[in-house]
Amino acid sequence: MSTRSLEILTARLNRLPGIGIKSAQRLAYHILTLPEEEVAGLASALTEARTRIHYCPVCGNFTEEELCDICSDAKRDGSVICVVKEARDVSFMERMREFRGLYHVLGGTLSPMDGVGPDDIRIKELVERVKDGRVKEVILATNPDVEGEATAAYIAKQLRPLGVRTTRIAHGIPIGGNLEYVDEMTLFKAMENRREV
Amino acid sequence: MSTRSLEILTARLNRLPGIGIKSAQRLAYHILTLPEEEVAGLASALTEARTRIHYCPVCGNFTEEELCDICSDAKRDGSVICVVKEARDVSFMERMREFRGLYHVLGGTLSPMDGVGPDDIRIKELVERVKDGRVKEVILATNPDVEGEATAAYIAKQLRPLGVRTTRIAHGIPIGGNLEYVDEMTLFKAMENRREV
Repeated sequence: MSTRSLEILTARLNRLPGIGIKSAQRLAYHILTLPEEEVAGLASALTEARTRIHYCPVCGNFTEEELCDICSDAKRDGSVICVVKEARDVSFMERMREFRGLYHVLGGTLSPMDGVGPDDIRIKELVERVKDGRVKEVILATNPDVEGEATAAYIAKQLRPLGVRTTRIAHGIPIGGNLEYVDEMTLFKAMENRREV
Repeated sequence: MSTRSLEILTARLNRLPGIGIKSAQRLAYHILTLPEEEVAGLASALTEARTRIHYCPVCGNFTEEELCDICSDAKRDGSVICVVKEARDVSFMERMREFRGLYHVLGGTLSPMDGVGPDDIRIKELVERVKDGRVKEVILATNPDVEGEATAAYIAKQLRPLGVRTTRIAHGIPIGGNLEYVDEMTLFKAMENRREV
């Protein structure tokens, strides 16, 4: 084949989530028509992002610095921690511009079917943060799906002996929904209507 | 921002066709979770494909070699040329595994609104190939949209003085299609092109 590098590029793109074989082909052909600088820019953006960004050791969010923007912001309220599944969820919550506390990124949710147990996600780290004493409330903002609910219930149980207020965001978010596709107002309501668990 | 390289990557991905801001964000966050080798592999596949692949000087298809796979294949029938808009269209036609002639990639279609005239696409090169004398038939396989039809009509006019057989792919109802979902223009073409059974 005289287009081996095109086939390789198509296969690589096809490995990305949500990029089927047709989209991968369309993208690959498009890339061949772009200026070389544009393609080089995309290639280096990929490697730069991957090598520079790591997990914040406190909350598990993505950052290039030692601590993430939120953990290093002295104006944020350290007495409230909002627990989310993934680092992306932090950006979804931040769109609301209402929550001024800190976050805790679990890096997944409990899923016995996929072999994800309590030690595979950052639950122990959350318990340690709460034991620190400054935390007055933990808001459980995992998605309202089976794994998200189970994870919230499990964490609530772990936090009970510590006497910290533990709340669950309200079901203003449609069941089976996803934080990504919820509008800011619904998200705000969901936070406002959070209840003791 | 402690996630500048993440923002840059998202913006770069968002510039690709069919990748909206949400898809770009999802992809960027996913890329941060991939092994470094996987990201490096994708980055190098991008630059490799872009730098190695160029246009075949005969037909305008993509190739890494001097000539493309099809032009350099002695078993292909040099007396028939199928004219398509883009290099991708060659791969769509080849899926059929029936056509054994050669191709001519225009690199666009006539579009006065976008300032694309006859000199901006590879029409002159097609006329030169036909003048060579070996070509017995030119099949015009541009898309059945306004620009594709206008381009086919224009090329047919240019080829008329050369006395070469010039044909247009048939338009009609796709196999497995349904009258209910076929647009009026296609239906009209299907009626117009009806044949004795």
